[in-house]
Amino acid sequence: MTPEQFRDAGRQTIDWIARYLEQIERYPVLAQVAPGDVRRRLPAQPPERGESFEAILHDLDDVILPGVTHWQSPNFFAYFPGNASPPAMLGDLVSSGLGVQGMLWATSPACTELETHVLDWLVDMLGLPDRFKSSGQGGGVIQDTASSASLCALLAARERATAFRTNATGVDCVLTAYTSTQAHSSLEKAAGIAGIGRRNVRLIERAIEEDRRAGHTPCFVCATVGTTSSTAIDPIPAIADVCRRSGVWLHVDAAHAGSAALCPELRWIHTGVEHADSYCFNPHKWMLTNFDCDCFYVADRRALISTLSVTPEYLRNPASESGAVFDYRDWHVPLGRRFRALKLWFVIRHYGVEGLRAHIRRHVALAQEFASWVQADDRFELAAPAPLNLVCFRLVTGDEATQRLMDDLNGSGRLYLTHTRLAGRLVLRLAIGGTYTERRHVEAAWQLIRTRA
Amino acid sequence: MTPEQFRDAGRQTIDWIARYLEQIERYPVLAQVAPGDVRRRLPAQPPERGESFEAILHDLDDVILPGVTHWQSPNFFAYFPGNASPPAMLGDLVSSGLGVQGMLWATSPACTELETHVLDWLVDMLGLPDRFKSSGQGGGVIQDTASSASLCALLAARERATAFRTNATGVDCVLTAYTSTQAHSSLEKAAGIAGIGRRNVRLIERAIEEDRRAGHTPCFVCATVGTTSSTAIDPIPAIADVCRRSGVWLHVDAAHAGSAALCPELRWIHTGVEHADSYCFNPHKWMLTNFDCDCFYVADRRALISTLSVTPEYLRNPASESGAVFDYRDWHVPLGRRFRALKLWFVIRHYGVEGLRAHIRRHVALAQEFASWVQADDRFELAAPAPLNLVCFRLVTGDEATQRLMDDLNGSGRLYLTHTRLAGRLVLRLAIGGTYTERRHVEAAWQLIRTRA
Repeated sequence: MTPEQFRDAGRQTIDWIARYLEQIERYPVLAQVAPGDVRRRLPAQPPERGESFEAILHDLDDVILPGVTHWQSPNFFAYFPGNASPPAMLGDLVSSGLGVQGMLWATSPACTELETHVLDWLVDMLGLPDRFKSSGQGGGVIQDTASSASLCALLAARERATAFRTNATGVDCVLTAYTSTQAHSSLEKAAGIAGIGRRNVRLIERAIEEDRRAGHTPCFVCATVGTTSSTAIDPIPAIADVCRRSGVWLHVDAAHAGSAALCPELRWIHTGVEHADSYCFNPHKWMLTNFDCDCFYVADRRALISTLSVTPEYLRNPASESGAVFDYRDWHVPLGRRFRALKLWFVIRHYGVEGLRAHIRRHVALAQEFASWVQADDRFELAAPAPLNLVCFRLVTGDEATQRLMDDLNGSGRLYLTHTRLAGRLVLRLAIGGTYTERRHVEAAWQLIRTRA
Repeated sequence: MTPEQFRDAGRQTIDWIARYLEQIERYPVLAQVAPGDVRRRLPAQPPERGESFEAILHDLDDVILPGVTHWQSPNFFAYFPGNASPPAMLGDLVSSGLGVQGMLWATSPACTELETHVLDWLVDMLGLPDRFKSSGQGGGVIQDTASSASLCALLAARERATAFRTNATGVDCVLTAYTSTQAHSSLEKAAGIAGIGRRNVRLIERAIEEDRRAGHTPCFVCATVGTTSSTAIDPIPAIADVCRRSGVWLHVDAAHAGSAALCPELRWIHTGVEHADSYCFNPHKWMLTNFDCDCFYVADRRALISTLSVTPEYLRNPASESGAVFDYRDWHVPLGRRFRALKLWFVIRHYGVEGLRAHIRRHVALAQEFASWVQADDRFELAAPAPLNLVCFRLVTGDEATQRLMDDLNGSGRLYLTHTRLAGRLVLRLAIGGTYTERRHVEAAWQLIRTRA
């Protein structure tokens, strides 16, 4: 494909996406297909000869779209949002176009330096502590997901707790990690990966001192700002106190909720974060940046780098050896990495800090309004406080009716929401965070919920 | 940004990339900047108000490009290629536009089913064993990098060797893993992450039986098809024999070289792979698909899924519970995932299998020709066989002269190559794999190398 043909195919693709976004409300939000429906429409063998670009775009409409759940629909209220935006898409397109690989500073200095810079910006934008900035001992890096960020934090914690011995020789003591019952499942997964063992994650509150007396080595606490089930917020200052006294690594996972701190009036969610060893939030959830983009910060980058650095000859270079640069390959699991800072840079510049705040405020206000509607209707009850943009509610008549309501709503194709279980009871989760979600969509959702109830 | 404004900004972005690709040979291949040069040009504070799209594109030229090392330049011969292509970029753009998150089959069925389908296609396209297909007990998944694929393979191996005990309770025995001295550094990193310990990776040939007699638990062998230093190929059939006898997991890392097997005459590189438990190759290296895209296959997907699956309430759904679908979140470290199969599908359909083969054959032929030029010049010698598209060579006058030559070549900005060390001696690596690299670029490179030598 010559550059001229690329111009033509590129315009067709841009037009296809624009049309998709214009018409997105026409599609059922939750894909209405059965397992195997999409594959059945695909040829068993790949084409021997190249096909026209038009044929490929045609199959997007014909084969792919019916099997897509429309995360960008303004009527998508499931899970947490994964809100993309036009500037993010185009920033990512430039990243694809440049096709650089930023494993080392030397393999594309701009890829590393823009990332460090934009992640420093975000420390100020969210009012995070200065210790996470690159100018001191800390620094930020883009990870794919909060799961990977938690894993890296846990690994650095494991090493610090064992004087960097386990990384070389393997785990030879019982290490323990702590989190609340409502923390994200990624921590249990990370403990399994790290060789600590899932059973050594204390999902209930349990004294670190008790484990120490039993001969175990407490190494890590993961506190959550905005749990997945209900955006509950752990008491960080009290947890930080315990961690400081016992020398245990404190990681704060604010994957979804962190973006709220763009607004000064919502920065209370981060109280105590100044004592954390590491912190992460996902612009790919609620800051208009398409997946994947998790911002992961550490207060002492040496602990992270010592844990993850391995340098074979073919990666050695003068810039790395000078110590004057960051080589981000040592800050996460993968070696290769794409230029993800571009999309974040495009988003921040296009919207400006004020524009991003307006977007958060709109969603929070809509969620508060929705919660007030739920409260005013006798058939429903709120199942948890709604401090931000997630409302947890249920039918007072119980789990079975609530489940039937959810299935009915999602089957209608007119909106999509998901569930959780709080204190043993089924709860519906309505998360408001779509780039294009307006008041009328939330009103229509409530109207539909009331009618179907 | 409305869809109409997106059309306009999108066209500008497509034009910007087309122009970049047209003019790419004008830039120095290796960025000629010092640490901090890029950051110094960026404002200390993010903008309070949004800026015009034109201003952002302007800074791409002004601030970013001087700090970019041009991986897509036809004169880029460093590391291994990271060859992008227009259809891959546009496939990835569609993925950004759809903005779906494929953690579960249910969260966008097409995202999972297209991935399973295209990865099955690739089994046939590369002549890989049927056991890696989803129709049996195996299956393929896209990972970000071969590092992550190796880690997942090692984790599944660790679990299988300990009857799935360590995942729950932590590592409580000395586990050992094996690889050749020239294997990729990712394995050492993975062993550290997995709690096995880097020292328990045997970088030299060492009898598995000997470790077992010492009370250790051998769990994993990583064999390499096409090492990073010199595209050397491990004797897979002999290694597979040992693994089979001792019940040790065999992973084959063909990150770069695997794509060569698109051509039937090059499939000898995969001899013995039919006995592997897992295998990976990276279309983002040498199959025209922009980063990130590693194809990872397992022969027994249950071992992998048992290792990585954790299911909190908010992710439960009828499709998952029916067992009729794949939930790819259980096949890798991250939970969230983007629709990466689209770019692979676009690439395969646009080029067709024949088109992809032609591209591999062109690079291999050019490398063979370059190697013959090196052999014919008394001042140079080949430092290793060049079975594919990488030529390792050096000046006969020794390391110092070779180093000077490399610095001089890379400083010229006219090409970029990197080095390694083989048998203790410095070696230059010239890897031919650019989407736009033609004979004239390789000729010019050789001309420049001879002149500067």
